[in-house]
Amino acid sequence: MKNIQAYVNQHKDRFLNELLELLKIPSISADSAYESEVLKTAEEIKNSLEKAGCNTVEICQTKGYPIVYGEKIIDKNLPTVLVYGHYDVQPPDPLDLWDSPPFEPVIKNTELHPEGAIFARGACDDKGQMFMHVKAMEFMTATNQLPCNVKFMIEGEEEVGSASLADFVKENQDKLSNDVILISDTGMIAKDTPSITTGLRGLSYVEVEVTGPNRDLHSGLYGGAVANPINILTKMIASLHDENNHITIPGFYDKVEELSKEERAEMAKAPFSLEHYKKALDIEAVYGEAGYTTNERNSIRPTLDVNGIWGGYTGEGAKTVIASQAFAKISMRLVPHQDWIEITELFKNYFESIAPKGVTVKVTPHHGGQGYVTPIDSIGYQAASKAYSDTFGKTPIPQRSGGSIPIVSLFEQELKSKTILMGFGLDSDAIHSPNEHFGVWNYFKGIETIPLFYKYFTELSQ
Amino acid sequence: MKNIQAYVNQHKDRFLNELLELLKIPSISADSAYESEVLKTAEEIKNSLEKAGCNTVEICQTKGYPIVYGEKIIDKNLPTVLVYGHYDVQPPDPLDLWDSPPFEPVIKNTELHPEGAIFARGACDDKGQMFMHVKAMEFMTATNQLPCNVKFMIEGEEEVGSASLADFVKENQDKLSNDVILISDTGMIAKDTPSITTGLRGLSYVEVEVTGPNRDLHSGLYGGAVANPINILTKMIASLHDENNHITIPGFYDKVEELSKEERAEMAKAPFSLEHYKKALDIEAVYGEAGYTTNERNSIRPTLDVNGIWGGYTGEGAKTVIASQAFAKISMRLVPHQDWIEITELFKNYFESIAPKGVTVKVTPHHGGQGYVTPIDSIGYQAASKAYSDTFGKTPIPQRSGGSIPIVSLFEQELKSKTILMGFGLDSDAIHSPNEHFGVWNYFKGIETIPLFYKYFTELSQ
Repeated sequence: MKNIQAYVNQHKDRFLNELLELLKIPSISADSAYESEVLKTAEEIKNSLEKAGCNTVEICQTKGYPIVYGEKIIDKNLPTVLVYGHYDVQPPDPLDLWDSPPFEPVIKNTELHPEGAIFARGACDDKGQMFMHVKAMEFMTATNQLPCNVKFMIEGEEEVGSASLADFVKENQDKLSNDVILISDTGMIAKDTPSITTGLRGLSYVEVEVTGPNRDLHSGLYGGAVANPINILTKMIASLHDENNHITIPGFYDKVEELSKEERAEMAKAPFSLEHYKKALDIEAVYGEAGYTTNERNSIRPTLDVNGIWGGYTGEGAKTVIASQAFAKISMRLVPHQDWIEITELFKNYFESIAPKGVTVKVTPHHGGQGYVTPIDSIGYQAASKAYSDTFGKTPIPQRSGGSIPIVSLFEQELKSKTILMGFGLDSDAIHSPNEHFGVWNYFKGIETIPLFYKYFTELSQ
Repeated sequence: MKNIQAYVNQHKDRFLNELLELLKIPSISADSAYESEVLKTAEEIKNSLEKAGCNTVEICQTKGYPIVYGEKIIDKNLPTVLVYGHYDVQPPDPLDLWDSPPFEPVIKNTELHPEGAIFARGACDDKGQMFMHVKAMEFMTATNQLPCNVKFMIEGEEEVGSASLADFVKENQDKLSNDVILISDTGMIAKDTPSITTGLRGLSYVEVEVTGPNRDLHSGLYGGAVANPINILTKMIASLHDENNHITIPGFYDKVEELSKEERAEMAKAPFSLEHYKKALDIEAVYGEAGYTTNERNSIRPTLDVNGIWGGYTGEGAKTVIASQAFAKISMRLVPHQDWIEITELFKNYFESIAPKGVTVKVTPHHGGQGYVTPIDSIGYQAASKAYSDTFGKTPIPQRSGGSIPIVSLFEQELKSKTILMGFGLDSDAIHSPNEHFGVWNYFKGIETIPLFYKYFTELSQ
């Protein structure tokens, strides 16, 4: 494929500015107050796909936020790549920890990004990475080098569980038929250590509610005599891990794949400095399940984390109250073979069973998805590996990620094709955190690498 | 003392309306946004004391909110009663649980208050109860029946720890000299079972903060590999009670007074229905320290309750985040002989000691105070007992309360006088809760009973 770098160089400023405009729209799918902004973002994605050379582009309505679909079919005998991405973003809270407003993107230099990084919610996850595909498409159509058919499916509910996408995929199997699915919504080990994600964790996300007395009570008059929902909630959550940080839910580990010594030894070869890791997070020690390393804990082992907790008086000063209710949001990351629906049920039953008399407990499942593993001997993986090798000068390392893209397992089930996860972000990009950013170098590197995937995938398919 | 009932009957509507006006001002001392409202309330109290017949009334500035002082000295050879109350109120949160706005008082009939109850924040605690004293004063001066000297000291920081009052008392011992202190900031057992509070619990109120990584993290990429501050906080809080609901802080119980079998048997005679108690709170079972009854748990035993907890994402929907920090407000109710400063220190040391590596912990003491017990053979208690007997037709029962009025123990220390706690509220009045209210019957009963206390106290002092 010719002149990729030249084309990118020539259009650098425009490529950046187009992304910055997209990042200005607060497309927060979790908060219904931003509905019109999410819809506006879908329109912008539609326009950008049209400009990039798609023949057919449509905004497909769903029960939730729409899915933007675009395609360019050049020859039915050639392979078809389906690109998936999402245009919604995580809520930016806590706002006061952002150095600049989350929806006023700015480019600043950092230690890891001397060429500059774009700071904004969604810069990396996933507007920035998704937009690399749009710009790669533009390059291929503008220079008449598109080697195969392309379909785009960009959704607006990834950060809240992709509920509508599942229906859309099931109802549009012909329209979405493809030979490989390509996603950039993960990271790589380092700028000088490219990697391809070969595993994702599954997810079960629930909300729990503990109710005690029928109203808030004065802690002096009732303290010590009735079950305090907050005290009870802390006790119940604490009991979900034992002293070795194993999860105590009966049956939780039953289907967990145990890796062989050889596989764990292979994993341990990936470059990793525990000192650097601790320093980057400013912590004195890591913490997790006994018997596993940090990289194992966040990839091949399931976890249970509280993502939010609230109850009682949380304002300025003091209030001597016993709250009537306490709440928490809890998510479990699951490994391949753990079924998220089964795990959600196990959690619900166990959590309800450990509630003492004097409180009632409600567990509401939010969303979830299965884990995923992809083989490294597939044509798709080989094409991605060659593409990275060309642009990075190094063969990428296959790596399991601790994150979840629940829809990937559904794609395999419904569309019968494998997903290739070509991520260009870094762990330090602070996705889901204040000051999310995406390296300018990484953005352009992605745009340069993606067309080569199309080239090699088409060649290897013949 | 003559014509009390006739006077109250004649001025009923005005007595009610004056209180309603006072309740309209949101004098929330815990929230600095309400500063001007708190100050406005002090002005109103000053005006009402002047109208009630005090000779000298002044607004005394402090480092915090001012103290309203008023007095009427009729004869230096007669005894002096010092009335204490507070004009500040608790924050009204959670607002959505109020049936009517907290600062728009309305009178509604309830099962326990067929004569109507005033619904508003501060209706009972303490504007309503404090204002009974102002109206009792008005009656005595208007009918020329004041039998002794009276001093009023009404503060605006009771709900946030009375920090300025302590200095004020220490610096004004002559001005505040008295023979007995009279407070209505507690309750009685029932409308047909008058009681006088003879014991109060002490209080230590702290805020804790657990910090893990230096920023919020993606729970997929870091979940299971770093200490999650919310999980850790729940574990630390849960470990503050053992399986018998004893508090685990070393040394916590060292100075707790153990009551004799006889004293506990005496306490058990107070009318109490566990079934009614559970039904009123809509709970299936009570919960507390093993080996003690409900009435013991909330009066003669110390407690530890979380009053508020927060951390991570608490908005609509789901966010897969590991929060950098988690927080809780924790209060301990203490019994006589437990020193609140010592207990606060024990808490701090223990809480810091149980933090695992990977997080840092900060404990900030908010405020506190000592517990209190008053004898039932004092002149003050006897005068109160006679006053209740006259208006209720029954001898009141001495009762220990689970609540705290930390300043009472300071009064004894600095002013060398005993406090009599004449409460007219009911446990069901929902003080510190949504829908706080105060029975109209109770309000007028208080105004009728208080002047009799002055009469009997003066007689018994001679």
